[in-house]
Amino acid sequence: MTDGFPSLAADAERWIAELHDDVTAFFRRADGGGAFTEERWTRPSGGGGVTRVMHDGVTFEKVGVNRSAVAGELERGTGAPMGLSADLPAGTRFFATGVSVVAHPRSPMVPTVHLNVRYFEVMAADGTPTDAWFGGGTDLTPYYPFAEDAAHFHTELHRVCSAHHPEFYGTFKPWCDRYFVNSHRHGEARGVGGIFFDQLRPASAGGLTHRDLMAFADAVGRVLPAAYGTIIDRRRALPYGERERRFQLYRRGRYVEFNLLHDRGTLFGLKTGARVESVLMSLPPLACWDEAPALTPGSFEARLTEMLQPRDWLQNAEPAVNDVAMLATAR
Amino acid sequence: MTDGFPSLAADAERWIAELHDDVTAFFRRADGGGAFTEERWTRPSGGGGVTRVMHDGVTFEKVGVNRSAVAGELERGTGAPMGLSADLPAGTRFFATGVSVVAHPRSPMVPTVHLNVRYFEVMAADGTPTDAWFGGGTDLTPYYPFAEDAAHFHTELHRVCSAHHPEFYGTFKPWCDRYFVNSHRHGEARGVGGIFFDQLRPASAGGLTHRDLMAFADAVGRVLPAAYGTIIDRRRALPYGERERRFQLYRRGRYVEFNLLHDRGTLFGLKTGARVESVLMSLPPLACWDEAPALTPGSFEARLTEMLQPRDWLQNAEPAVNDVAMLATAR
Repeated sequence: MTDGFPSLAADAERWIAELHDDVTAFFRRADGGGAFTEERWTRPSGGGGVTRVMHDGVTFEKVGVNRSAVAGELERGTGAPMGLSADLPAGTRFFATGVSVVAHPRSPMVPTVHLNVRYFEVMAADGTPTDAWFGGGTDLTPYYPFAEDAAHFHTELHRVCSAHHPEFYGTFKPWCDRYFVNSHRHGEARGVGGIFFDQLRPASAGGLTHRDLMAFADAVGRVLPAAYGTIIDRRRALPYGERERRFQLYRRGRYVEFNLLHDRGTLFGLKTGARVESVLMSLPPLACWDEAPALTPGSFEARLTEMLQPRDWLQNAEPAVNDVAMLATAR
Repeated sequence: MTDGFPSLAADAERWIAELHDDVTAFFRRADGGGAFTEERWTRPSGGGGVTRVMHDGVTFEKVGVNRSAVAGELERGTGAPMGLSADLPAGTRFFATGVSVVAHPRSPMVPTVHLNVRYFEVMAADGTPTDAWFGGGTDLTPYYPFAEDAAHFHTELHRVCSAHHPEFYGTFKPWCDRYFVNSHRHGEARGVGGIFFDQLRPASAGGLTHRDLMAFADAVGRVLPAAYGTIIDRRRALPYGERERRFQLYRRGRYVEFNLLHDRGTLFGLKTGARVESVLMSLPPLACWDEAPALTPGSFEARLTEMLQPRDWLQNAEPAVNDVAMLATAR
């Protein structure tokens, strides 16, 4: 809990709407030809959102960029998944707003990326804020394991985090490694991680204010052009064939498994009756559960398994581990 | 609970192994060219299974036929999902064996089918059986809605059920309708249902013995040649194109969603560390979450939604509701 502070709800809603537009614009440019369709939806119990989806773009097979802003009464007990006390005073209300993005590229050489930032505020019956926090993160899921891409992504996240707090990257990077895990697949990571944070309040952020935390969440929300755009540019023109496409579809099956079996946001959204199409926009456009590819030891595909072991990517930032030479050999 | 009775474990294991072979043989014949690969696996804590998968057959894109027989100690509390008392005496053991099958045809005109039968026995520490039951069922998931196929499938199930107990079909058909539901998709059924039963004991089956129930479960396990083979033969030569294939892949997404979000067997298997490849063999070979197809009212595809409303299929058994004429119109 935090001592009295002014509500950030209106500012957060404006911030998220702007960020949503900017993220959409980035993916429109990055795609180089595809267009988003937009659906605006409202929630019977208050609030709503805007879901934008690009299907069959030039660079991306599917991109979903969603924003929502919802408010309502916090029913007794429903706060538990968010770490709230079960005996909240009657009439306690909440406000939540956020942006979430998942981009599934066409080329198996370009990784899938996910990003989400959100603001949550708890208010007494009279509207006085009693608690507020930020959450979010971004993570990268490669199909073909270019070590320099993972290192670049993490280096950019480290830069953004460090500009706001010296301990953020060191705390949020392992949190991400712990979260995006297919525990049913012998603990295999969904990808090469990134950062993940939740319940980020002034009290847990060494003196930063709610405004400072909003600036941090905004910086995370705007990291993709630097952290991911570079990777798209590096990889999108690489050649690939049927073998690489099959491997991508096979690995996308793991993405579906994580989102439907383990992702708390997805499961919470589906249970609480959020708009199904918005919650499931994260699923890949096409995925297979066909025969597992036989991985030749030492092949480019086999190296993915090794790359999914969590590690300190900042110490692996040396340029090009002969990734492209590896690719040439693999083909 | 049931009064003293001899253990059926050894007989059930033999029965399931034979049934597994016969079901495999049916799908090999029905496919007309594809071959199964087999993997035998053992469970560190006791027992094991045989997983057979056909990939890229002539008629089927993927068929999985799995059998397992496992035994072990029932740890306190783990019996709860099966309706067992939480305070089982120390040293209580279990034996479980079953066959499960999922077949995903290549043609969107041929429905996906799922079948499972299983036997579960609970034993005191000294090996004396204290409880035993059968479970299982089979259900049909069409992509293109041929009403006469659903009627045929249910008519065959009614025939098999009625040969064993006059109330089985009337009890197990609505149970299936309640079970295979994508609650997160506004309660949409996975398919046109079939039968589902669990914890079937002599006490709940009006005088039938464990042996009688095994004969019933065996008959369910052998129903596919009559109930499904006919449908394959009717539909496999029908023409289809890209539109029908896209619709099939889109609907297969719903199959994945049900299995990963709602299917108790899948979730229980993954949580208890069963062999992941065997548990997930039910997933379709390829599925999409691409743009939802725009369904023209009255189109063949739009009729699927109507057909997924649970109904009395025995009253809809009149031949051909001009399905094929409908198909011609749709194209």
